[in-house]
Amino acid sequence: MRKEKDKVKIIPLGGLNEIGKNLTAIEYKNDIIVIDCGLKFPDEEMLGIDVVIPDISYLQKNIDKVKGIFLTHGHEDHIGALPYVLKEMNVPVYGTKLTLGIVQTKLKEHNLLSVVDLKCVKPRDIVRLESISVEFIRTSHSIADSVAIAIHTPVGIVLHTGDFKIDYTPIDGCVADLTRFAELGKKGVLAMLADSTNVERPGYTMSESIVGETFEDIFSSARGRIIVATFASHVHRIQQIIRAAIKYDRKVAVSGRSMENIMEVGMELGYIDADKDIFINVDNINKYPESKIVIITTGSQGEPMSALSRMAASEHKKISILPGDMVVISANPIPGNEKLISRVINQLFKKGAEVIYESLADVHVSGHACQEELKLMHTLVKPKFFIPVHGEYRHLKQHAELAIKLGMPSNNIIIGDNGEVIEVSRDAIRKNGTVVSGQVFVDGLGVGDVGNIVLRDRKHLSQDGILTVVVTIEKESGSVIAGPDIISRGFVYVRESEDLMGEARELVRDALRECEEKRITEWASIKSNIKEVLRMFLYEKTKRKPMILPIIMEI
Amino acid sequence: MRKEKDKVKIIPLGGLNEIGKNLTAIEYKNDIIVIDCGLKFPDEEMLGIDVVIPDISYLQKNIDKVKGIFLTHGHEDHIGALPYVLKEMNVPVYGTKLTLGIVQTKLKEHNLLSVVDLKCVKPRDIVRLESISVEFIRTSHSIADSVAIAIHTPVGIVLHTGDFKIDYTPIDGCVADLTRFAELGKKGVLAMLADSTNVERPGYTMSESIVGETFEDIFSSARGRIIVATFASHVHRIQQIIRAAIKYDRKVAVSGRSMENIMEVGMELGYIDADKDIFINVDNINKYPESKIVIITTGSQGEPMSALSRMAASEHKKISILPGDMVVISANPIPGNEKLISRVINQLFKKGAEVIYESLADVHVSGHACQEELKLMHTLVKPKFFIPVHGEYRHLKQHAELAIKLGMPSNNIIIGDNGEVIEVSRDAIRKNGTVVSGQVFVDGLGVGDVGNIVLRDRKHLSQDGILTVVVTIEKESGSVIAGPDIISRGFVYVRESEDLMGEARELVRDALRECEEKRITEWASIKSNIKEVLRMFLYEKTKRKPMILPIIMEI
Repeated sequence: MRKEKDKVKIIPLGGLNEIGKNLTAIEYKNDIIVIDCGLKFPDEEMLGIDVVIPDISYLQKNIDKVKGIFLTHGHEDHIGALPYVLKEMNVPVYGTKLTLGIVQTKLKEHNLLSVVDLKCVKPRDIVRLESISVEFIRTSHSIADSVAIAIHTPVGIVLHTGDFKIDYTPIDGCVADLTRFAELGKKGVLAMLADSTNVERPGYTMSESIVGETFEDIFSSARGRIIVATFASHVHRIQQIIRAAIKYDRKVAVSGRSMENIMEVGMELGYIDADKDIFINVDNINKYPESKIVIITTGSQGEPMSALSRMAASEHKKISILPGDMVVISANPIPGNEKLISRVINQLFKKGAEVIYESLADVHVSGHACQEELKLMHTLVKPKFFIPVHGEYRHLKQHAELAIKLGMPSNNIIIGDNGEVIEVSRDAIRKNGTVVSGQVFVDGLGVGDVGNIVLRDRKHLSQDGILTVVVTIEKESGSVIAGPDIISRGFVYVRESEDLMGEARELVRDALRECEEKRITEWASIKSNIKEVLRMFLYEKTKRKPMILPIIMEI
Repeated sequence: MRKEKDKVKIIPLGGLNEIGKNLTAIEYKNDIIVIDCGLKFPDEEMLGIDVVIPDISYLQKNIDKVKGIFLTHGHEDHIGALPYVLKEMNVPVYGTKLTLGIVQTKLKEHNLLSVVDLKCVKPRDIVRLESISVEFIRTSHSIADSVAIAIHTPVGIVLHTGDFKIDYTPIDGCVADLTRFAELGKKGVLAMLADSTNVERPGYTMSESIVGETFEDIFSSARGRIIVATFASHVHRIQQIIRAAIKYDRKVAVSGRSMENIMEVGMELGYIDADKDIFINVDNINKYPESKIVIITTGSQGEPMSALSRMAASEHKKISILPGDMVVISANPIPGNEKLISRVINQLFKKGAEVIYESLADVHVSGHACQEELKLMHTLVKPKFFIPVHGEYRHLKQHAELAIKLGMPSNNIIIGDNGEVIEVSRDAIRKNGTVVSGQVFVDGLGVGDVGNIVLRDRKHLSQDGILTVVVTIEKESGSVIAGPDIISRGFVYVRESEDLMGEARELVRDALRECEEKRITEWASIKSNIKEVLRMFLYEKTKRKPMILPIIMEI
């Protein structure tokens, strides 16, 4: 009997075969713990969608078992779904200090702060649940206070690395806890789930300190103002900008709501170390010489409403770009954002600013482990079984191959998918069925009320617009009393297409007459006749296929 | 008097502050020549648009002067607008053999082949016009038969490099004509327009031969089929694939319409050198062992309808991906295409194929000059004046800075914009006014009938959909006879939102009643009342702003 019962279930509900929306459930007997609770930003085809979150039906069904959400770090793809998920399922949230600091800001915005139980943990802390315990282990990443999570179960240890890199010279001096990884490895790790983001890159990810050296170079030579855009959550990056500002005697102004938020949280919690005197209000930047100013801002991804984009487009209320400004974009473009960033860079150059960005200098390093770092982690932890996570299929596949090259039998590796139940016993790992999973679209206040049909319609509307055809028909006789009127949006310039629309109206009129003569009175038939006639006519004339919406009013 | 008259006008109508849509007019007295006639693919916000072409109003107005279109090479961003432009302005088209071969295929599709005067030229040929002459000079690029164009005018020589790189070991053995560039430099070049695409990259672009070496490695180790996707126009790349196929005794099958076209044109004109026996029909690939097959295909940019995408999605009629297939994506992602390509790579991996792409091996090199090559061109040509072209502002700006570093006075450099008239005399270069320019959208059969209003509507529709509100009103009394009916598309799931729509209908009913009571009878007022009431209600309930289209029928 024991054999059959003693299994840990690993159920990824997000983060496999995709970048983002990370959420993994680990289940043993009466305990389910949730690792991370992230969102994903919509793909291009998800028109009008604000964010995408994981489907948590499985957790809701098993809510009695769910002991809490355990966070590895404070990035959106790991914490962003919390406000939505906690509304459905109010469980304790465990995380390190900075992670919870960021979560608090988020919960406050959603009026949830008072109802959620936030439990602050430190690296090496252990949370004991009914039959398992959860341990936090320090890692390095592009945000401070990141951790891996080890789940100690009677079957064995399951280790989730979270997002990580190995940085021997991190800004806060807190190197990843390699010793503990080695200890666990010695003790025996049953299964490891590890970050696959950078598995395609050979070598090592450079240390965050490198960026500090680049900042030093830039600050030592700049004559005008320096404006640095970076990720708001990257407190170490921000710390390095502040250090350079102190060294080169510049005041620091902050622009952009999320940057202001993090500055407050980071200072309060001790993650950003700076004398308050160094900061000045954005309103006062003109009171200082240009050579004495640094502005730290959001917008490193070219986001249209961000502070940097508004400066570049002359739409920022308080900061105008001046010739001689040195703008540093301290970030990599996230795939899909290249054109937005490029637009901002062009605008800045046109305004006479110098612009320094990734292709020109080491102003950014990744937060994820490259191949050599992954090998180090595998070698220290020596897991029996391995599940690559955090990546598209190509990344998972290549991470599996990396493990095989290190000597792991390929049968001990599972490339899973969201919703698949991965069962691990002492001797074996296998997929055993699936649970409900998927993506839930958030659009405005609606969570899940926009689905594939709505998106398909938006896509159709976006390509060729819509033609609405309205006609009023007398119920008894079936004869047309008013209309047909045709109104189009997003199809053609109406003024230039009067002939086209006139012809279209005639065709609809003919179709209606034919229906009347043939005594076709079902609306559905009349509508489909109108649709078909118009569709063919418009496609022949324009090679376009607008949505056609016939509306019949009956009196 | 002479002084005032002796000016060459350089009028870029496309290709500045953008990538693509290259078209430059050079005007001297009664001669206007047009260099290239390219299209641009639409940005994300240009919803539903197929391609973008330059506004040629200026050329049409001065049609008597226009002596011809002179092509530098056969890429879409240099020839793609020809079918549209030639319909408006039928002038002779000059180009090298392969360039015109590709143009012919294009004109055939548009039923224009018989009416257009194509004039085939060779490098070093000179075309003499009324007061100027036009010379073609061999360059290297990622398509064979590319040329620079030197315009000899009484004021001096204007040199347009076209897209170029310096490849000392090109596949066809025809190195760029550095000697001629040096000769012109010695003679004295008045102004140079040069390709800025890769100005941000230090060093040299690697030779195309490097890719051949990578192919050799891949072919020597592959056991299953090899499928290579690349740009159809890249005959040298295709030649290298064929050479490797011959060496490793594999048959070649071709898939994808544009690839089939280029294979025909390339073989016929002698740009692809291969025995016909090596080719087999796609229908017959299963008659050979997998180790004896190479498939050359389109789809290196992940284009959804391309052959490779269809194979990856199991939608290709004739080719199914097999485990053990080796797929080589021999191209760089063009910015904006990253996600499409990534999707294809993931699908291929899932089907058990090996996939080799840019981040894993040298399977692609650029066709554009990096910094050291640009320096070589500037140093050979030694132009008095310089106009960086082919690039966004950041590229033009950095190319200008490169020229300044080489010793050119900054006053001798013009960073221009499309539509600006750049006047060059013997002693000076300056901007003098502008002409009509811009982008013309092609959507289906429509050229220019979709403008900003239509695009704005498409954008609006794509984000939150549309609500159509229809009501039939009696003319005399103003009282409602039928409706209001509300039909939405792309807004919410109708079934799940019955309450919302019911409430909305009530609100419209109230608004109509109020109008009736207040004796408001103008349609415009009634409509704007309906709009306002709905807009506020829906935003409050959903935080969305669908397009609201009120339609009033009167009987």
